[in-house]
Amino acid sequence: MSTAQTSTQNTTTVSAWAAPSAKAPLERTTIERRAVRPSDVLIDIKYAGICHSDIHQARDGWGEGIFPMVPGHEIAGVVSEVGSEVTKFAVGDRVGVGCMVDSCRECENCRAGLEQYCVRGNVGTYNALDHDGEPTYGGYSTHIVVDEAYTVRIPDGLALDVAAPLLCAGITTYSPLHRWQAGPGKKVAVVGLGGLGHMAVKIAHAMGAEVTVLSQSLRKKEDGLRLGADHYYATSDEATFEQLKGSFDLILSTVSAPLPLDRYLGLLRSEGAFVNVGAPEEPVSLNLFSVIGGGKTLAGSMIGGIRETQEMLDFCAEHGLGAEIELIDADRINEAYERVLASDVRYRFVIDASTV
Amino acid sequence: MSTAQTSTQNTTTVSAWAAPSAKAPLERTTIERRAVRPSDVLIDIKYAGICHSDIHQARDGWGEGIFPMVPGHEIAGVVSEVGSEVTKFAVGDRVGVGCMVDSCRECENCRAGLEQYCVRGNVGTYNALDHDGEPTYGGYSTHIVVDEAYTVRIPDGLALDVAAPLLCAGITTYSPLHRWQAGPGKKVAVVGLGGLGHMAVKIAHAMGAEVTVLSQSLRKKEDGLRLGADHYYATSDEATFEQLKGSFDLILSTVSAPLPLDRYLGLLRSEGAFVNVGAPEEPVSLNLFSVIGGGKTLAGSMIGGIRETQEMLDFCAEHGLGAEIELIDADRINEAYERVLASDVRYRFVIDASTV
Repeated sequence: MSTAQTSTQNTTTVSAWAAPSAKAPLERTTIERRAVRPSDVLIDIKYAGICHSDIHQARDGWGEGIFPMVPGHEIAGVVSEVGSEVTKFAVGDRVGVGCMVDSCRECENCRAGLEQYCVRGNVGTYNALDHDGEPTYGGYSTHIVVDEAYTVRIPDGLALDVAAPLLCAGITTYSPLHRWQAGPGKKVAVVGLGGLGHMAVKIAHAMGAEVTVLSQSLRKKEDGLRLGADHYYATSDEATFEQLKGSFDLILSTVSAPLPLDRYLGLLRSEGAFVNVGAPEEPVSLNLFSVIGGGKTLAGSMIGGIRETQEMLDFCAEHGLGAEIELIDADRINEAYERVLASDVRYRFVIDASTV
Repeated sequence: MSTAQTSTQNTTTVSAWAAPSAKAPLERTTIERRAVRPSDVLIDIKYAGICHSDIHQARDGWGEGIFPMVPGHEIAGVVSEVGSEVTKFAVGDRVGVGCMVDSCRECENCRAGLEQYCVRGNVGTYNALDHDGEPTYGGYSTHIVVDEAYTVRIPDGLALDVAAPLLCAGITTYSPLHRWQAGPGKKVAVVGLGGLGHMAVKIAHAMGAEVTVLSQSLRKKEDGLRLGADHYYATSDEATFEQLKGSFDLILSTVSAPLPLDRYLGLLRSEGAFVNVGAPEEPVSLNLFSVIGGGKTLAGSMIGGIRETQEMLDFCAEHGLGAEIELIDADRINEAYERVLASDVRYRFVIDASTV
């Protein structure tokens, strides 16, 4: 454990960046991490990605914020201590933590490896209450204590900085691409080329699919093609929807803008699927004939289970896939937030935790 | 061929019941059937079901009616003549014709057995223009001439009168139940217990699923249980949505009323599917978080392909499934229409074609 920490009885004081209250800028502070329990690992955080939802929650966009809030659910680090009953990890192991740090472990979803859909609700990595009633604090910190069951291994060959964003952006896109069978012979469209979208392009391409980016403009076209897209179209161009009618087996929407769903569903082949991982908060309008004609599917997907997260990391390591990142010091978090909101990031800010 | 027919050059004049114009009552008339081509069969129609969409089209609900219109796409009969190149059928064979009588046969959907989604548009059994430019006339008639490729066999042991509705109501429900894997260990809900819904209950039960009917009221509960449902709930009862939250693997909606989709999606287990075969014409409102949380699916389905229609008939024969019907003479068609609109039919009117 680093010298920055001081132990007080059961907890350990560590550095972190927190939003002290809704909409306030983040600032350096200290938080308490629980003592390592028998099934816990203590992780020296090396890198933490900045996800759009961090900003949303830190600014209390969903109205249920617990403050002070330490965001961060794209965590990569190294195990520095293990509990007495830990079997999966040893000190020195390279590990990751994503969007959840616990769940009920008993419901049908938990038993099926779908912990993200735990019927009692999973325990978010931050801005949640843990089973002991204490608030959880995320990855914008030097250390975190997590049950080994919610910790995944980052394979050798995957650098920790570019691996961090995989813990949310990677699994959120891998899971539906895998479930809806992106692969050779399949035409996959990715809507939006941001943090999620750029990983979707890389992963779908690595899975062997023919990948098309549907972006508002052609501004990032060169990037998209370099990342693995075969085609790139602007959705601001009316002709796109005529030209690509009936083209795709799978469309993965990573944007949170309210899309004209009926038009997008028209881009699917018969029995194709349009899967949302991003979504607007207000309801959207849908003509059900858009799914009836062609036997089409409109689906949703939320991150992925722990086992699948490990599978995703292994897949990314095997194919040499990491996120495209801009590494920043912690004192630039607030600036980074503004740039994320302005879509001015290619494609993920990652905090160097040594600067926290 | 019956004595009611008179041949004139290439076509044959046969009896039929037609709507002379939009919204006018149906009346007895005669129509021309084309001469039997090499790949055609001439079918002596024995029975024709009355589908809700017959009424919709005869009254020009979709605004594209071709008049005079002879409705009917649930046709059961006996082959009375075969073209020179027909190989599948012989005179005397018991056959059925459903919602389409042709398609392009070349597109990816036609080649995949998804003729109902033909990218050039299938040729409807009535109220459509055939490839020769002539309007098609449906099953409210004594005879019909259909290409053998769009004709299916009605297995022995399935009476023709109860088999007729299977050609639309049967396949429309069988196809999604099969695709979305209704079967042992699966909990399936059927929304609406009408012509489609009652077949969905029978088929899902025969597939081995645990079947629940979700109907506006408990008025038909006894019927529902007799038809194969294990449970029956009223959707007018607020408690239903609380009680059944997260219950179903598959919900098949057969109603055309605009449902509160978010509430129905809440009845699904994680990764469950809500499939629409009925649909309102106006757009519905949907909160995409209803599908994202739980990785759920909202899908649509439209009838089924020819191969699958045969598979459905074989399945129904094997399990002794026919429609629950009320057999009527042709001169009661207009009265039957009114009763269908008033939901006063259990569960399908079938016209005795000998009275046409």
